[in-house]
Amino acid sequence: MSVTDELLANAERYAATFDKGGLPLPPAKGVAVVACMDARLNPYGLLGLAEGDAHVIRNAGGVITADERRSLAISQRLLGTREIILIHHTDCGMLTFTDDDFKAEIQAETGVKPDWSAEAFADLDEDVRQSIGRIKGDPFIPHTDQVRGFVYEVEAGRLREVKD
Amino acid sequence: MSVTDELLANAERYAATFDKGGLPLPPAKGVAVVACMDARLNPYGLLGLAEGDAHVIRNAGGVITADERRSLAISQRLLGTREIILIHHTDCGMLTFTDDDFKAEIQAETGVKPDWSAEAFADLDEDVRQSIGRIKGDPFIPHTDQVRGFVYEVEAGRLREVKD
Repeated sequence: MSVTDELLANAERYAATFDKGGLPLPPAKGVAVVACMDARLNPYGLLGLAEGDAHVIRNAGGVITADERRSLAISQRLLGTREIILIHHTDCGMLTFTDDDFKAEIQAETGVKPDWSAEAFADLDEDVRQSIGRIKGDPFIPHTDQVRGFVYEVEAGRLREVKD
Repeated sequence: MSVTDELLANAERYAATFDKGGLPLPPAKGVAVVACMDARLNPYGLLGLAEGDAHVIRNAGGVITADERRSLAISQRLLGTREIILIHHTDCGMLTFTDDDFKAEIQAETGVKPDWSAEAFADLDEDVRQSIGRIKGDPFIPHTDQVRGFVYEVEAGRLREVKD
């Protein structure tokens, strides 16, 4: 049995006890969270989010690229969110390599160099500030006065705010 | 008090009861989930995921763009995941508009047309198949033999697999 099959069995249990109350499409709390994909970072447990509360956008690093700007534009323009919470975290995989080395390894193996930036970073707090800057500098995200950035400390389960 | 402040109070409670056992960086279950950012879709509750289990990648629609290919390449190459679970869902915001209309509205308001595709779609199952195709066609994601796609039915809390 694959891990996917194991998780599908969990999904059947979820459906069996699902409250069919019917939640609306727009997030109840009007907030979008952008966080790293890291397995130890569970935005639901950490922020006390329930089904229906918030958009959750995630990728390697929790960085802001064109796709996060797209998702945030849709979140705010079509679904009414107004606040943005950015979460990076300690012991992040993105701190363990450089773009150049990672892409050179892929080129050595496949013969082709990826056409994307790997978005690795060396300084957590500075990368959170970069992400805030990319959001505030985007012309298509209308509401950028409530954007706050945090580092999740995986060792302690604690959020620490990154100040400008 | 902003919603962000309210969620930060939840985060303090999470830290207070956090098990400082220390989880490893690589996901325990070796799986990456790619899902829509929709507020009603909680991958932790649905799939029975706990902290440490899986990478979770999310955006508007749960579509595969360059940033998801980047995240999946990092997930598999650096952190050892081997299975991919894709989740779209019913009543998705991406079914309610077209790229052309959305971008024309932004252009009318800001004077500039976004340089991204909004990735709207009209057929859920077909877009899941498109996402699987984009992953299988990517030269930098090494393990694509265990990629399965699903539609989460928000009305019933149920996952339905999309077959080829």
